[in-house]
Amino acid sequence: MKQSQLFTKTRKEAPKDEESKNAELLIKGGFIHKEMAGVYSYLPLGLKVLKNIEGIIRSEMDAIGGTEMRTSVIQSNGTEIGLSFTNEEAYSNIMKQYVSSYKDLPIYPYDFKNIFRNETRSKSGIMRGREFYWKALYSFSRDEAQHEEFYEKSKQAYKNIFQKAGIGHLTYMTFASGGSFSKFSHEFQTVTGAGEDTIYIDESKGIAVNKEVYTDEVLADLGIDKEKLVEQRAVEVGNIFSLSTKFSEPFDLTYTDEAGEQKLVVMGSYGIGLGRLMGTIVEVLSDDNGIIWPESVAPFRVHILELGDSEEVLKEAETLYAALASAGIETLYDDRMEMSAGEKFADADLLGMPYRVVVSARSLKENGVEVKKRTEEKGQIMTQDELLHFLKTKE
Amino acid sequence: MKQSQLFTKTRKEAPKDEESKNAELLIKGGFIHKEMAGVYSYLPLGLKVLKNIEGIIRSEMDAIGGTEMRTSVIQSNGTEIGLSFTNEEAYSNIMKQYVSSYKDLPIYPYDFKNIFRNETRSKSGIMRGREFYWKALYSFSRDEAQHEEFYEKSKQAYKNIFQKAGIGHLTYMTFASGGSFSKFSHEFQTVTGAGEDTIYIDESKGIAVNKEVYTDEVLADLGIDKEKLVEQRAVEVGNIFSLSTKFSEPFDLTYTDEAGEQKLVVMGSYGIGLGRLMGTIVEVLSDDNGIIWPESVAPFRVHILELGDSEEVLKEAETLYAALASAGIETLYDDRMEMSAGEKFADADLLGMPYRVVVSARSLKENGVEVKKRTEEKGQIMTQDELLHFLKTKE
Repeated sequence: MKQSQLFTKTRKEAPKDEESKNAELLIKGGFIHKEMAGVYSYLPLGLKVLKNIEGIIRSEMDAIGGTEMRTSVIQSNGTEIGLSFTNEEAYSNIMKQYVSSYKDLPIYPYDFKNIFRNETRSKSGIMRGREFYWKALYSFSRDEAQHEEFYEKSKQAYKNIFQKAGIGHLTYMTFASGGSFSKFSHEFQTVTGAGEDTIYIDESKGIAVNKEVYTDEVLADLGIDKEKLVEQRAVEVGNIFSLSTKFSEPFDLTYTDEAGEQKLVVMGSYGIGLGRLMGTIVEVLSDDNGIIWPESVAPFRVHILELGDSEEVLKEAETLYAALASAGIETLYDDRMEMSAGEKFADADLLGMPYRVVVSARSLKENGVEVKKRTEEKGQIMTQDELLHFLKTKE
Repeated sequence: MKQSQLFTKTRKEAPKDEESKNAELLIKGGFIHKEMAGVYSYLPLGLKVLKNIEGIIRSEMDAIGGTEMRTSVIQSNGTEIGLSFTNEEAYSNIMKQYVSSYKDLPIYPYDFKNIFRNETRSKSGIMRGREFYWKALYSFSRDEAQHEEFYEKSKQAYKNIFQKAGIGHLTYMTFASGGSFSKFSHEFQTVTGAGEDTIYIDESKGIAVNKEVYTDEVLADLGIDKEKLVEQRAVEVGNIFSLSTKFSEPFDLTYTDEAGEQKLVVMGSYGIGLGRLMGTIVEVLSDDNGIIWPESVAPFRVHILELGDSEEVLKEAETLYAALASAGIETLYDDRMEMSAGEKFADADLLGMPYRVVVSARSLKENGVEVKKRTEEKGQIMTQDELLHFLKTKE
């Protein structure tokens, strides 16, 4: 996309009431627009990131047998009509229509949808919204054994998601309170000072324990040595938990087993907030100059900057832009005239695409373009062919 | 997809309070679930249709310069906070951040989102929901001339959308009330007895006039001969209208023109309800046996039925299913055991995939499979290779 055609622009300042780093950077970069505390709109660049995250989650959910559907936002909660703040009841109701025999189980429907909660703390940018975009999968199984089998698969799927989204190295599967129906639930917690939770990490095992269940008894139960644990602030980017028959019982969600007996369906719940995940990526992967998007979620993989607006430079930049497009490489092309090199460099750092490619009189003198990773200090000169080869082999 | 793994099943009956043909067929087929009057969830098959429709609309919006974004559902309307029932104000507010010079215009942002209206008439299934999924594009132009240029392009884009969605032959661009800011707005009306509007069609010109502006003066103005007009019931599947400065004035959405003067931005609005479009397709393209999906929006292009469950038939059906999958042809495979041929045929008609392919002892005796279009009475025997060739050349 040509940057001259992108209606958003970078801004020097975020709104004064914006306290969080993620929203500040995302607003300055033109990724999101703040409607009010805890409510944000996604502008074109932000929506591209959100869709990339959605794609990563969808492929992992489909890989473990998930089936996508879309429940309504308006739900009747008992006698009242309201907005969705969770989805267990909607799903239980629908499944009553379709589950009658053991042959109908297991099933793993899931949903991407907007969820509404009247949060009193809305100071964490898109990490804690009053309106937020959520993936919720529910598992419906015949019994605890069938449930456990899927639950274990879902752990791996969640690890894959955070790995692919670029924050796997900072994210720990964390034992947390299981409520009345199971011993533990499992949270996926990403280490960041912006997090609201406290966790205790066992680096050697790659797991953590949430403060809410941090007792000697639990540690002994999990075989964790208290001496090894490191306390950290973290944000919960996903969670999975066993619901047992908590919802199937009141909703009378039953099936006939192979012996002809009526049994209650065993359920589990698996959630990820997409805005929160996007906000967390920004919190943990930015630097003083702006955002650093992992390639998997970046709105564009390459950011071409043409400097100087000379005919020769423009021609070279256009040729490169066309070559990258026909190679299927998503590229943002800063073709804006009359912008200083400094302004273009600052914008590129703020927007955070993985590869910056500068086309200038100087780079042409060296017979190429200057290619620099967002995470590195120094770039290198490559010919267009070398750049294409480089990007293709990095895929 | 294997039908045994689809959790939805066809049903003999729709809910008793369901009066509309579209919702009745879609509920029986397991495409949607009724949450309450005017509120439906989209089950896996229904979501696939909705996404196909979304894809058609997106490609046409992008082709005329649209940029996708996603505004929040919660909006502040003046002093109150509420749910989106329209989007002009949200867009005007955002654009105030980004529009200052004539160089920033024109821009054409759009959105797919859930919209909420407290409809008193919720008896038309997914054609009129209290919650509905909507595409809204707004155009922001420098002046009336620039606005008109885009407005004309959008007419063609809308025609393309309804053509691609399979209802172009029943859909008329219809002159309707323009409100206080322009002479006419333009609706796209699809002829169906289930529609709530009355239109007067000039078949020779391929246009229509909404009853609300059906006066001798308007007809003379449009050069339409009253004698030629045919009255029909129709449903509005899309609309476009000029807003002039209706919103830019109160929101003070201005720009500096080339002469340095402050000017108000000229706006237009372009909407399509995706659920309504899906419901309309069902209303106008079904028969007594069920739905008839156009290939462009069908959840699957091919529906394989294996009959008899013999080892030979199962093997042949599995081979065909794998061959279609590797050719990238979306296929639903009715692999359900112990279902009668009659039940499978009835389900296939109800679900409405464009091509039904029967694998049975009889078809194997004739050295092939029986291929029948949903719209035709009789099928024909083809080998698997012939079927693959047939489907590929029809693309």
